[in-house]
This record gives sequence, structure tokens and C-alpha cells, in this order.
Amino acid sequence: MHDFRYKGKNLYCDGIRASELARRFGSPLYVYSYKTLVGHFLKLRSAFSEINPLICYSVKANSNLAILKALLAKGAGLDIVSGGELYRAIKAGCPPEKIVYASVGKTDDEIAIAISKGILFFNVESLAELANINRIAAKLRKIPRVAIRINPDIDAKTHKYVTTGKITNKFGIDLANAYRILLMRPNFSNLKICGLHIHIGSQITDSVPFISAIKRVSGFIEKLMADGIRLEYLNIGGGLGIVYDQETPQTAQIYAKKIIPLLKKTGLKIIMEPGRFIVGNAGILITKVLYIKNTPHKKFIIVDAGMNDLIRPALYSAHHKILSLVSGLKTEKADVVGPICESGDFLAKERMVAKVKEGDYLAVMGAGAYGFSMSSNYNSRLRAAEVMVNGDKISLIRKREVFEDLIRNEKV
Amino acid sequence: MHDFRYKGKNLYCDGIRASELARRFGSPLYVYSYKTLVGHFLKLRSAFSEINPLICYSVKANSNLAILKALLAKGAGLDIVSGGELYRAIKAGCPPEKIVYASVGKTDDEIAIAISKGILFFNVESLAELANINRIAAKLRKIPRVAIRINPDIDAKTHKYVTTGKITNKFGIDLANAYRILLMRPNFSNLKICGLHIHIGSQITDSVPFISAIKRVSGFIEKLMADGIRLEYLNIGGGLGIVYDQETPQTAQIYAKKIIPLLKKTGLKIIMEPGRFIVGNAGILITKVLYIKNTPHKKFIIVDAGMNDLIRPALYSAHHKILSLVSGLKTEKADVVGPICESGDFLAKERMVAKVKEGDYLAVMGAGAYGFSMSSNYNSRLRAAEVMVNGDKISLIRKREVFEDLIRNEKV
Repeated sequence: MHDFRYKGKNLYCDGIRASELARRFGSPLYVYSYKTLVGHFLKLRSAFSEINPLICYSVKANSNLAILKALLAKGAGLDIVSGGELYRAIKAGCPPEKIVYASVGKTDDEIAIAISKGILFFNVESLAELANINRIAAKLRKIPRVAIRINPDIDAKTHKYVTTGKITNKFGIDLANAYRILLMRPNFSNLKICGLHIHIGSQITDSVPFISAIKRVSGFIEKLMADGIRLEYLNIGGGLGIVYDQETPQTAQIYAKKIIPLLKKTGLKIIMEPGRFIVGNAGILITKVLYIKNTPHKKFIIVDAGMNDLIRPALYSAHHKILSLVSGLKTEKADVVGPICESGDFLAKERMVAKVKEGDYLAVMGAGAYGFSMSSNYNSRLRAAEVMVNGDKISLIRKREVFEDLIRNEKV
Repeated sequence: MHDFRYKGKNLYCDGIRASELARRFGSPLYVYSYKTLVGHFLKLRSAFSEINPLICYSVKANSNLAILKALLAKGAGLDIVSGGELYRAIKAGCPPEKIVYASVGKTDDEIAIAISKGILFFNVESLAELANINRIAAKLRKIPRVAIRINPDIDAKTHKYVTTGKITNKFGIDLANAYRILLMRPNFSNLKICGLHIHIGSQITDSVPFISAIKRVSGFIEKLMADGIRLEYLNIGGGLGIVYDQETPQTAQIYAKKIIPLLKKTGLKIIMEPGRFIVGNAGILITKVLYIKNTPHKKFIIVDAGMNDLIRPALYSAHHKILSLVSGLKTEKADVVGPICESGDFLAKERMVAKVKEGDYLAVMGAGAYGFSMSSNYNSRLRAAEVMVNGDKISLIRKREVFEDLIRNEKV
């Protein structure tokens, strides 16, 4: 599933010893495997080759330009959610006709720039947004394409913060209203409504919710066709779960096998928006053990990566495997915690982890997605460096911040 | 409690209309009231004037240099938790002898810089850290002061992520071990153990946990004195709760009245570390309504501030009042949500809020502490601008980020 493996006693990222990276670039350090990253993209593409979808990598999972460039070079498109991500997409060299843009809160400026760049389409989340894009397009004398995001009211059975396809979520438009909107599409004369979009959540390990959602939307497409409403695209979103712990998510191939027949029946060009599936297991976070703290009740391994570097444990109760960079150590139960001054700052609780000592390094696995992209300067901590390993080649793809970065925009 | 008030129909920050700030600086926008900020500091100082404590403002609550400078000018010291905060403290002009430094994970570099700057003392969180500071001090031929952080095993009855004084938390040293450490203090010949520190958590509205903790530590101090161990400082930490919703936290005066007798008995110089109490209600987050989205089940007010700007609702289930910049509107039940692509991105759920329309502005109240300081670039969103209002004077204290800031440290 990924290219972080012990060879002899040492953990390697592809051809490079992880401890060498820690020594050279310091810690905390995000390390990505080019091979894993691109491998996951190719695996998905190959599983779906029969229908040749446009695979738009979800930039929010990890937006580093080097990650985007690596995927673009293999033919990926990009799924963006903000003006900042559009800026990144263009900087990374993404052809605008391979960009799809979702978000419940697109601003006028963001919409105008995306229209003028000529993106493939907007995923539209509400009637109000549809009207707004139409208004801005009229002003710009353009006719951008839009897809209506359907809220299929499917429980994706994932963390409540990343379930997005239930009717009580802020995302998408229910089928009845979507139908009404499509019937009144001549009112939006500056838009070309060209497709439908669904995205029911993130880190979904079971195929059932995907199949239910696709069935619901294909039924809807049939109904539209019966009414003479023809579309070009079906965007089935992302959400494919990965292995963090004991999950046994469906493989790309099994997923493909189950849904390709449904997708083919629609006759539409398929868009996919995988993020975590591609980059999640392609990254680790290397952190140094600062202190071993034995208390009467617990052992704490205090490391130099905090919730500002990786907020997933605190925010989503997420599980990340924690490995020593050296194999074969005895294990013992401990909390692995960061240096930040709150109890929410932990990487693992009451976990059997390697018996490390101060100065040793640990690898937080599966940190490629929603790791660096959610990181902050909380506690005035510098954001980590990021490196990409490709075989024996090491590239620093983001420099560690320096103190000056903290106050760059402050004025006193 | 603060200086954000309706005058006529409009919400003002002190002498300035909030809508004028939104128009001039754009949104999302953090706005601070100088008067509230400094007022809270002075209120605390006056309540405790009898014992004249050193009030070290907790930088992590809001680390903007302008905030620090405003408080330093009134005689505050600073409570820091990282090398980055030390950098800010020095930049803001804080005399090193007014800086105390806590954190379970101080790195060697951070310790060395703090020693060389000559801070007042370190709050030491473990035996391992004590040994490490001693080692580094010996190398630098210095004898820095340290206070032992006591974990008093008190349940502060606050959110589990910000309770820090329970024995199962990573913070501090239990009394028995602290006693052993103090007896073996000649072993740490490059340290001057000069005090004790307690900090049981954050946003604590009741006085009972504070009193219990102080009683426990004063009993301990008596025991130490009986053993001939003399200290200079007692650092009672921070944690004073503020009004976000229906809380009725103790006032500074009531708090002072209850604990001053206990503190006086110790005979030690008192340090306090308030953060939220000083800055929490001195800041608001102004956000623009982008879309009103009516769904069959809910009304969503989609605004341009997201969980990247203010993560407290998602992370701590925190409640923030939400006011319209214009008073007198009818109210209705809605979710106030941001533009970020997850369901965890909300500011209020099923709340009675003003019946605003697209283009209107809302003020998220009580956003001065742990607002901007926890903000991130998630979804490649630009971090907000910050302004400070002092009477009729408006200062932009942090410029809004621009797209170039997002990729400044990336290399491709």
C-alpha cells in the first residue's frame, strides 16, 4: 500500500533511510513517497480505464505544489475548493479545463477568477450560488459550465465532521429541488448546466454508501433524460477510505468493478475527486522524542510534533500508526503527546509503542492527507518542512518556516 | 465586559462602526478593542493590587505583536510556551526578567536561547526536562531559575482538551515526585529552583478548582519550608473563564478576594498567567454572509469565515454568540457555516440568529482568544486581517495574507 518499509533495522522511504532525512532536514518533518503517491493515482486510473474518467485530485488533502505537479504530469486534473487552491492549480501548471471547483461558499472574486480562467465546471451547492454565478458570468459576458451538486441523503458512516451527503449537511441540493432547478434552467441564461455532482464524505471504507448514492443519482439522470434534459458529466466525488489502523477498505479494483456498470449506464463522462486515497498513505510525519516522562499513572512520550502539525487525532479522534525509525524495539503502553499546552495535543493515547529514548525518532504513518494542509502556527510554532523522495532522490518541497515568517504580516 | 455595543442600530467597536471596518478591510476580519484588552488587564491588576503579582499575559491566547505591546506598556509580563513566542516577546520589547516559559516539550535550542536571554524562569514539567535544562545551562555556564510545575490532580471541570491539572494529563509533576526532586536539588547544580507553578486548565468559571489547587500547593509549600526548602515564587497559572454564552464566571475581584488570603500565607511573590481573561472578549470576528441556503430541513447561513479562521466550535464544541452588525432584525433558527468542505466547519448550529441577507455581516463574539492564534491556511484560504481600535483610532495590526504567502516556502 505504500513505500515506507523496514529494510534491515531501519525504516526507509523508498531508497532513503528515514533517519537520514530527519538528521538532514530536522524535525518535525513531512516525508512523501513519490512512488506511493503516483502509484495510487495510476492504480485508480487503471481500475477505471474502461470508462476513462477524469481523475481530479482533491487539492485540499495536500496542496503542496510538488504533489500537484507530480500528479498533473500523470494526467490528473484537480478538484479545488477556494481561490487559493485555484492559484495553486494554475501555478502548478494545471490546464483550466481539468479543474472542477466545489465549495458552499464561493465568493464573487473567486467565481470571477475561475470563470475568466475557464475551468471545466463549478460544482454548485445552492440555488443562491447558481444565481450568483449566473449574475457574475453575465457581467463577464461568459457562459461557464456548472454541475449541480446533489445531496443524495446517504449516511456515509464516517466521522460526523466529514460526512457530507446527509440532508442535514450544508452540502448539495436535495433531489426535488435539483429537479426544479433543472426545469428552470432557461432562467440561468449565462450558465451551461452540464452535469451532476455527488460527494458523500471522506474516509469511507465500505462500498454500500457509494453504490446507494450512485444508484440514487443514476435514477435521477434517467428521469432527467426522460424529460429531455441532457447532461455531459457525472462527478462522483471522492471519499475512498484508506488503511490507518485495522480498516479493510475496498481496493480501487473492487470499487471500480462495483460501480462501473452503474456509471456506464448513465452514458456520461465521469469525473472522480480522490484526495486521501492518493496521498494519505504517501506521507509520514517524522518527529523527535524530546522527553520520556514517567508519572505514577502513565508513561508519556513527548515529541516535537504537535497538534499544530497534525490536528487529525484531536479533531477527528483519528488513529495514526506510530512506528520507530528503528525496528525490533520492545513495546510498552504510552501516550505519545506533543509540546503544545493543551491536553488535546496528542498523537496516540494508551498505545503500545516502541520503547524509544530521548533523541530517537518516531514516524506517524498515514500523514500525507489533511496533515500539512491543516497545519497552523498555534503556540507560535514554525510549520514543518516537507520533503519528497523519489527513488534515491530527495527534494525539499517546502522549507521549514523561520521566526520571521510568524510576524511577516504584522505591523506595529 | 467589553466595548462592542450597539449605538443606534449599528454595532460599534468603541468609537468605530463595525460595518465601516468590514467595508474598509474586507472580511473575514478580526477586530480588537484596545480599551477592553487593557481594561481587563487593569481590572485584574487592581483586584490583586494588595499582593502586587507579576501578571504574565499568556501569549498563546493571542500573540499579535500589537496586543503584546499594548499589555507590556501597562506593565504586563509574558507567559510563553515556545521559541516562537520568545521571539515575539523580545520583538514586542518585553524585558526578559518578565518572561516565564512553560511547555512539556521545550527543545534544546529553545532552552538555550531562553537561558541566554535571561528569562525570569522556566516552568519545568518533568524530571527529564529538569535534567536537560541543567545540562544545557552547564554548557552555557549559566544558572537559570526554574519553577517546578505541580500537577495537583484537580478536575477543573472544563473541556477535556483544556483541562491540564489532572494526574492523567501530560502536564506537571505529582506532589510526591516534586518533593523528591526538591530534596535532590543539589544534584542540579546549574539550576536555581526558585518556585512552584500550577495551571489546572482553561475557561474555568468556578472558583472551587482554583481554591483546591492553591490549597494543595500551599500545604506543600509549608511542608517544604518545614524542611528548610525556601522558594521565591508561586506561579498560579491562568485559566479564568469568561462569558461566551450563559456562563457566570467569577469576577476578578471575587476571585482575588477568595485567593489572596491563601496566597499571602505562602509569603511568596505571585505570578499569574491570564490569557483568555484578558483578550477573549476583546476581539470579534467579522464575517460576510455569502449565501442563504434554504433546504427542506434546515436554513444555512453561509459565511466567509471558516474553521481555518476560528476552529473553536469544531475542536472544543465552543459556543460563540453571533450578532448582526445591525440591530433590531427578526431572528430565526439557522446553522451558521463556513465555506470549508467539511461538516465540522460551522460557527453555530440550530441557533436563533438575526434574519440576515446575502452581503450582510455578522460578528462572532468572544473571538479574541484562541481565534487568530489557532488559524490555518486549510483549504488554501488566506489568513484574516486583524485590526485594533483605540477610541476613534484604527490600526491594521496584521495584513490579510495574499496568495503568494501560501507558497512562499514551497520549492518546485
